[in-house]
Amino acid sequence: MNHKIIFCLPGNELLAHRLSQKMNVEPGKLTMRRFPDGETYIKIDSEVAGKEVLLVCTLHLPDDKLLPLYFLAKTLKEFGAAKITLVAPYLAYMRQDKRFQQGESITSEWFAKLLSSFVDELITIDPHLHRRSNLGEIYAIPTQVLHAAPLISSWIKANIPNAVLIGPDSESEQWVSEVADAAGVPYVVLEKTRKGDKDVQVSVPHLAGKTDKIPVLVDDIISTARTMIETIRHLRDAHLNAPVCVGVHGIFAEDAYLLLKSSGASRIITVNTIPHETNGIFIEELLLPVLQQ
Amino acid sequence: MNHKIIFCLPGNELLAHRLSQKMNVEPGKLTMRRFPDGETYIKIDSEVAGKEVLLVCTLHLPDDKLLPLYFLAKTLKEFGAAKITLVAPYLAYMRQDKRFQQGESITSEWFAKLLSSFVDELITIDPHLHRRSNLGEIYAIPTQVLHAAPLISSWIKANIPNAVLIGPDSESEQWVSEVADAAGVPYVVLEKTRKGDKDVQVSVPHLAGKTDKIPVLVDDIISTARTMIETIRHLRDAHLNAPVCVGVHGIFAEDAYLLLKSSGASRIITVNTIPHETNGIFIEELLLPVLQQ
Repeated sequence: MNHKIIFCLPGNELLAHRLSQKMNVEPGKLTMRRFPDGETYIKIDSEVAGKEVLLVCTLHLPDDKLLPLYFLAKTLKEFGAAKITLVAPYLAYMRQDKRFQQGESITSEWFAKLLSSFVDELITIDPHLHRRSNLGEIYAIPTQVLHAAPLISSWIKANIPNAVLIGPDSESEQWVSEVADAAGVPYVVLEKTRKGDKDVQVSVPHLAGKTDKIPVLVDDIISTARTMIETIRHLRDAHLNAPVCVGVHGIFAEDAYLLLKSSGASRIITVNTIPHETNGIFIEELLLPVLQQ
Repeated sequence: MNHKIIFCLPGNELLAHRLSQKMNVEPGKLTMRRFPDGETYIKIDSEVAGKEVLLVCTLHLPDDKLLPLYFLAKTLKEFGAAKITLVAPYLAYMRQDKRFQQGESITSEWFAKLLSSFVDELITIDPHLHRRSNLGEIYAIPTQVLHAAPLISSWIKANIPNAVLIGPDSESEQWVSEVADAAGVPYVVLEKTRKGDKDVQVSVPHLAGKTDKIPVLVDDIISTARTMIETIRHLRDAHLNAPVCVGVHGIFAEDAYLLLKSSGASRIITVNTIPHETNGIFIEELLLPVLQQ
């Protein structure tokens, strides 16, 4: 087994630090900044020759992260790193996985090809596998997918024992039912109609007989939060309790967090795949067994 | 000769439109936008099979342009484009061309390798070749370098016949002397000491006997503008006329444009390698003979 070392891109310091401490693995020293003209400067301040690098970089807002990540991976290899494992708790470009209209770029495939060209392995949490069954269909490198569902179940069981889980759409049913079963609580699943990036219609949930419970809205990604906000409105109209919102990946695009906060949610909780003040469920215990192999 | 078609990334519409009109070349139709979560969407709305694509994308603020450019180039090829020529009037990542300190990433080489992997040819204007003599040392694809000096000379001759050119440092002497000679005006060159990204000291120029002339500060890149601002201060202290500032590439990092405007320059003029309100010298006539080959 190679000696391991953990590096991270700016913004991932907390997770990298926790992993480094819990695994007792050397933290890599790195200087990374932007010049005034927007170009990235990188200096690797640790010896990496012969070492296995764990490179922590979650990939929300991916476009301006790709080039720094590429520079860093290439330079680590130039200095002799034996292997680079990208730990990307949130994996970008999973949505455009087919051509819905003629002429569209299937960005999920191109992104996978590019990442596969400069890292040796990928570890991620709950990628948005929509029409694909596994990452191996698009990634040329070994991939490991970890699931946050057990962590979410434990959190609900410990914090909201009187919950009723609410899944956003039929596609989420299997996932939501697993989370609910493991938490020992009931669930319902809504019908969602997407009319545009930010325009989502949600059916009124059938919650007769559940008015004493705390609705817990769970979704894999909170991006524009429009689905959750629309659902909260329906719950309020039905005189149900103020819901708790739980997301695996809290992207909170643009003003989504402010909108969701002011929509009537009693609490917003995310998994720390993307650093955010709502992080309340932590992936370290998922990652440790895999990274320590 | 293949049928040509011109595409551009957002922000390059004006140059692409002018080239398309003057060359009588088909403008490519493209839908490119960002989803709320920051990911790029691309749809190519023109037939490209068998065509030679001229892809216009200047590369200031390069980090968040690289991925959209890569997606577009790969998708054009997927749809059968015979060749992709990247027209990047400003070429990024030319500064870090050696390791000044141990551990530094030589980003100019990695950037060149990545661009070379997905476009077939590169055309650019006055790249910042500092310690390299030509782009072929780092680019694996054919490159063509064009020079804005004749355009700048013509502009000075037509607009500031009473000019004295002022070059920022000894490195610029050859370039500034050529511009001055072609414009038929004298020149002086300063000594510059760089102490940091934004901290630059400039020697007082020796301009005795030139107090009736209009100083014209010329540089290849106006990034933080600190050199020009410091020079303008010295000129003012020496009771010289308010200078005209001319740059090939007007990057104007952060608040540089506001600072330069308020520093006492009588006029700021750039070449349109980067779209900016100071653009007053136009590269179309440089590009046309090359692109029409």
